[in-house]
Amino acid sequence: MDTDTTGTVSFPLTGRNGRTFGGGVSAVDNWLARAFLRAIGNPALRVVLWDGTQITADGSSPAVAMVIRDRGALWRLLTNPLLNFGDDYSAGRIEVEGGLVRFMETVYRGMRSTPRYRRVSDPAAYRRNQPNLNSPLESRRNIHHHYDIGNDFYQLWLDREMLYTCAYFSDQAASLEDAQTAKMDLICRKLRLEPGQSVVEAGCGWGGLARHMAKKYGVRVTAYNISREQIAYARSRARVEGVEGQVEYVEDDYRTIRGTYDAFVSVGMLEHVGPDNYRELGRVIDGSLSEQGIGLIHTIGQNCATPMSPWFLRRMFPGSYPPTIREMMALFEPGEFTVLDVENLRLHYAKTCEQWLARFEQNLERVREMFDERFIRAWRLYLSGCIANFRLGALQLFQVVFTRHTNNLVPWTRGYLMAPLGVADGNL
Amino acid sequence: MDTDTTGTVSFPLTGRNGRTFGGGVSAVDNWLARAFLRAIGNPALRVVLWDGTQITADGSSPAVAMVIRDRGALWRLLTNPLLNFGDDYSAGRIEVEGGLVRFMETVYRGMRSTPRYRRVSDPAAYRRNQPNLNSPLESRRNIHHHYDIGNDFYQLWLDREMLYTCAYFSDQAASLEDAQTAKMDLICRKLRLEPGQSVVEAGCGWGGLARHMAKKYGVRVTAYNISREQIAYARSRARVEGVEGQVEYVEDDYRTIRGTYDAFVSVGMLEHVGPDNYRELGRVIDGSLSEQGIGLIHTIGQNCATPMSPWFLRRMFPGSYPPTIREMMALFEPGEFTVLDVENLRLHYAKTCEQWLARFEQNLERVREMFDERFIRAWRLYLSGCIANFRLGALQLFQVVFTRHTNNLVPWTRGYLMAPLGVADGNL
Repeated sequence: MDTDTTGTVSFPLTGRNGRTFGGGVSAVDNWLARAFLRAIGNPALRVVLWDGTQITADGSSPAVAMVIRDRGALWRLLTNPLLNFGDDYSAGRIEVEGGLVRFMETVYRGMRSTPRYRRVSDPAAYRRNQPNLNSPLESRRNIHHHYDIGNDFYQLWLDREMLYTCAYFSDQAASLEDAQTAKMDLICRKLRLEPGQSVVEAGCGWGGLARHMAKKYGVRVTAYNISREQIAYARSRARVEGVEGQVEYVEDDYRTIRGTYDAFVSVGMLEHVGPDNYRELGRVIDGSLSEQGIGLIHTIGQNCATPMSPWFLRRMFPGSYPPTIREMMALFEPGEFTVLDVENLRLHYAKTCEQWLARFEQNLERVREMFDERFIRAWRLYLSGCIANFRLGALQLFQVVFTRHTNNLVPWTRGYLMAPLGVADGNL
Repeated sequence: MDTDTTGTVSFPLTGRNGRTFGGGVSAVDNWLARAFLRAIGNPALRVVLWDGTQITADGSSPAVAMVIRDRGALWRLLTNPLLNFGDDYSAGRIEVEGGLVRFMETVYRGMRSTPRYRRVSDPAAYRRNQPNLNSPLESRRNIHHHYDIGNDFYQLWLDREMLYTCAYFSDQAASLEDAQTAKMDLICRKLRLEPGQSVVEAGCGWGGLARHMAKKYGVRVTAYNISREQIAYARSRARVEGVEGQVEYVEDDYRTIRGTYDAFVSVGMLEHVGPDNYRELGRVIDGSLSEQGIGLIHTIGQNCATPMSPWFLRRMFPGSYPPTIREMMALFEPGEFTVLDVENLRLHYAKTCEQWLARFEQNLERVREMFDERFIRAWRLYLSGCIANFRLGALQLFQVVFTRHTNNLVPWTRGYLMAPLGVADGNL
């Protein structure tokens, strides 16, 4: 599904000094546009300048085009493309033809082929580009930035249970609702939950997984989150669904987790933790998991350590970083945890984001009542960029199951992943 | 299963200068024995000295005992326990009561609890303790040391197909033969083999997997190995079984692999490659895997980077090292490979080694016709130590499936692992 930008937005196109750009395209403009194409690896992309001038790397006429509406946007593209493209697209100074997702795929694929991109992609990149931005205080600010913009906005395009993480399309034609339920059940099977067990959840979003575990698997869940709006929503839903006795939502940082539990689960939080804090999160897990406990971390990841774009970090998810498997090992090695299972659900996340974007577009009029056009275009770009990155393999989705190295009560085969609970193969 | 040492071996118990040790136990001997117990974390172990003196950490009387037959062995235990225990056990200067596997478990568990052991266990440990010992020339010598001691010896205790790697006991009561076949089928399912495809195998042992793939899955296999005896055996079996047209055994180093293949597989070779060469192996994989190709690495591993014991490195597997998942990532990151799946078969390897040891003991008389008592005791110690290490979680068994990051023709669920070929769920 390639959801294109529908219609064109008219913004006043003015530079910093208030002067309106535009007018004739000079030889310098032309040269700059070609330099931009070269810098991003000369992808099959038409650059259309404000007077209609069309520029491509090889003289062909690709369907995918970037329409630059004024000279200022072109210049900004060359000074800091990874920040300014997003801002100028959001502001309507840059338009895209041929489908936004397809455009993002074209550009990302081109960029990833350049030697410069290769150079920044190394394990030290995170540290160089992003010092620890996730202290308890900063985490609160970072999480507030994205998650506290209004539950009613997220309700417009997330599923019924408000799960804002990768769904599991065991049936590729499944609805988002069914795929999110399948994801929760997959996690519960991986954790081998049994009635009466206790679970701690680090980063519980709107609390859907905790409620599902309580209702369907009969466990007690203590779920942590620092987003005030999410916690308020989660508590209210737990009351309505009559599981407030089984699920406790704690508005606090994962670093404050106390107690011992049969299972540790974290879905979509590690992206906000930052590698500098993985050892500390590992200590939290070590302190909270019982002797035979099972843990599961579900996180966006990468094959090579590459920082997120400055636009993504400033406008969407401050302090975020999707780890490589190598980086994740800092969670497990100091406590000598054994990795039992890693599953990569990359394409499931591409499909999940496609569904989110489609619902977002379907509910555009209601979104417009809440936010301005710049917000809408920024979110459209964000969701399209995610689809492109998951399709291209620039982002991954890792589910990692682990336990203490001394735990010999682990399943011998993966039969338990397929079978209903209770019919799984025996233990040691 | 705890296979104990049967009977006692009589060796001339003499020191370096020919003087016979033994006689009365002095206060110093007593103190040294206690110091040894302390150094290995005071496990529940009786130390019995040559005059019958019994020493324990807490005055209890554990069933597991180490009988030290002379003063020289006691002293050597304190100077370099990780080398000398193995040598003196092999020489009959040290005897074990209460079961050799149980003894090894007791001692390893104790050692792993000591702060000193914790200190050496860090990611730099490999490099400090073991410089690159696996150049092409050294690899040949290392492999010759263990694998070229006689196919008829290995035939006494390996399965019919001579697989010297972890079996897969999907049914825990399965025979070794069935479990090895199940392992091969598991690997073939993970590689999603289809008739007519081409496979390259790095480190093929006696060639059983290559023949199985050719016969049962209809693929062509090019299999590399630097063990002359194994290659000779593999070729002969391929002729007998009529698959010499489908399987080519190449007596050469993995570094010489040429050509492009639909699948890359390596079972039990990475342990002999050494982390210093992972990037090079990664380049070999990058050069040999087709665009939609699937790769699988099956290797013994560890949770924390810890060098093998000097005894194991000198007497059993020179140049060997089981990697952590973190270290394995050096195979995948430079070529931007995507890790699709990691499965940990640790307990399967404990069971495999139990079966090997049991068959070894059953065929002891025939082993005695080939080798001396020192060899037999060394191998008994080696197999028992492996059982203990896998049971304790000091060793792991990782199967890692990977593909190029651009490959979107990957399975959406793990259904293909369970179903017979052809019935697996659809692709993108």
